[in-house]
Amino acid sequence: MRALRFDGSLHFVSDAPLPVRPDETLVHVLRAGICNTDLEIVKGYAGFRGTLGHEFVGRVVESPDEGLIGQRVVGEINAGCGVCALCRAGDPRHCPARTVLGIKGRDGAFADYLSLPARNVIAVPDSIADEEAVFAEPLAAAAGILEQVNVAESTRVAVIGEGKLAQLICRVLAQTGCALTVIGKHQEKLALLEDLSARRLLLTHTGNEPDGLQSWVAESGLSQNFDVVVEASGAASGLPMAIALARPRGTIVMKSTHHGRTAFDLSMAVVNELRLVGSRCGRLAPALDLLARRAVNVRRLISNEYAIEDGLAAFAQAAAPQTMKVLLRFQ
Amino acid sequence: MRALRFDGSLHFVSDAPLPVRPDETLVHVLRAGICNTDLEIVKGYAGFRGTLGHEFVGRVVESPDEGLIGQRVVGEINAGCGVCALCRAGDPRHCPARTVLGIKGRDGAFADYLSLPARNVIAVPDSIADEEAVFAEPLAAAAGILEQVNVAESTRVAVIGEGKLAQLICRVLAQTGCALTVIGKHQEKLALLEDLSARRLLLTHTGNEPDGLQSWVAESGLSQNFDVVVEASGAASGLPMAIALARPRGTIVMKSTHHGRTAFDLSMAVVNELRLVGSRCGRLAPALDLLARRAVNVRRLISNEYAIEDGLAAFAQAAAPQTMKVLLRFQ
Repeated sequence: MRALRFDGSLHFVSDAPLPVRPDETLVHVLRAGICNTDLEIVKGYAGFRGTLGHEFVGRVVESPDEGLIGQRVVGEINAGCGVCALCRAGDPRHCPARTVLGIKGRDGAFADYLSLPARNVIAVPDSIADEEAVFAEPLAAAAGILEQVNVAESTRVAVIGEGKLAQLICRVLAQTGCALTVIGKHQEKLALLEDLSARRLLLTHTGNEPDGLQSWVAESGLSQNFDVVVEASGAASGLPMAIALARPRGTIVMKSTHHGRTAFDLSMAVVNELRLVGSRCGRLAPALDLLARRAVNVRRLISNEYAIEDGLAAFAQAAAPQTMKVLLRFQ
Repeated sequence: MRALRFDGSLHFVSDAPLPVRPDETLVHVLRAGICNTDLEIVKGYAGFRGTLGHEFVGRVVESPDEGLIGQRVVGEINAGCGVCALCRAGDPRHCPARTVLGIKGRDGAFADYLSLPARNVIAVPDSIADEEAVFAEPLAAAAGILEQVNVAESTRVAVIGEGKLAQLICRVLAQTGCALTVIGKHQEKLALLEDLSARRLLLTHTGNEPDGLQSWVAESGLSQNFDVVVEASGAASGLPMAIALARPRGTIVMKSTHHGRTAFDLSMAVVNELRLVGSRCGRLAPALDLLARRAVNVRRLISNEYAIEDGLAAFAQAAAPQTMKVLLRFQ
């Protein structure tokens, strides 16, 4: 089968073996999406080797659960051991022995076929098109914030970042009616949020000096009064900015997993008694519900679509600063 | 009056003016304690200039609240503006316009007299001796953790650090009956906790390499399964260790305000969806209750006591690695 594989560098191959795992569900992939995590893996993060990709929609070809065969599905990417306390509690996302589709110990979705346990896949309503359903995984990650933090109409929320994930986060948060401010570095990306009643601020501060950041915050008419700040910029400068914007005892949601060590001064987080919450994955069912209700318009985030054979070109475009979501198709 | 003042260097002076502030309460200081924050200020932190000190017990000499005159008191160190939303809600600790005794905009407790608003002082029961009451402020800071985080008998808790504050934290946490592990660098300090049913581990890993830390954790028979980790080491290495010990979705309480920028890799805090909670001050009433009930033995933490005239020698001893609490006396 065709696949985009990483072995220290990225290759398109046409003769990858089928990813057959005993007792699992085999899925014929229809569409897949390139995520920043894929770009990070190609830079060497996580030491992963194999078929990349974890955002997908596909059709079940084989499964021990016969009711799934022929169904169009999306999938929970964490495959737990099934027997530890976390898995037994129904949450494999933190199973210490988990494999993760296209990220850890398990070939991914940038291929004609992928394999996942039957319990990991969930049927997609017919009303959701393939190119929308492929957003279910990142949309779930965005919606997961609302499982961790209370956001209501009266909540003052800032989102730092205006990339693919940040855009989904803004759209999910906007559903709550909260007072939303978005801070980003690219005017064109911020403009994609023009249909939301959110304040959009172009970040002109660059560099990493605390004084420059404080000046920018003051000049922008911002103050340290946000109840919740979501850091989704993927940049090392995101967390210091979040600390500068959160009110005393406010909450910072850490959504970016930028890697390597970064120099932070966390003392103000202690003095202001902030709460920093790491946030990674979410649940697929609420994400599918948002898509079915047309509550979140994801089509406007699609920059381009490539055939799987042109995967390297797709990755090159996905890595360019102005690009939003790049999809891969398999027909 | 006599005072220990900092103007870029530390001086004992015998002719400091009385700290008279209109409408406030004047307190004759009986005992004061040297805290790590005082040592940090002497190193240049916070840009404070004036009389140091914020841990004290004293007797009220003058007050607009006549019932306070003659009372032996301790004091909330944050003096709020009294009119902002936070102050009106009864919590001046995060008032943006606050002054802080001996730390920010207000002369402190290492002097014969100090001034605080009447609402900041609280009477000390007769059963608590001066050398115990002087621990009320740091004990309140330790007990404040229980206002922010749920700790029960079934909770697995690790405390990183075995200094003055960490010792108080351990004693407060032990009251809950939780399963407690203490990790410290000094055997003699760890030994001060021998009366608690806590596991005590001598940290032999030094340096800041993640691999060495992981090895030490594994060799010590520890694993990433603590529900709550309290970082009270005052060292830059404390937070990476806390991240290595907290279970997925566990809580890290950040109690150290070590200053300056430190290189962290926070990506595992995101992947494991940790909650990091900054924790600074607590409330004095519960701390006085712990002292009155003899629930926390603070006398064993006293390394030495100096007359205020010997304040520089007191600071020198307080800064030595083996020292616990150093007190200053005024008679």
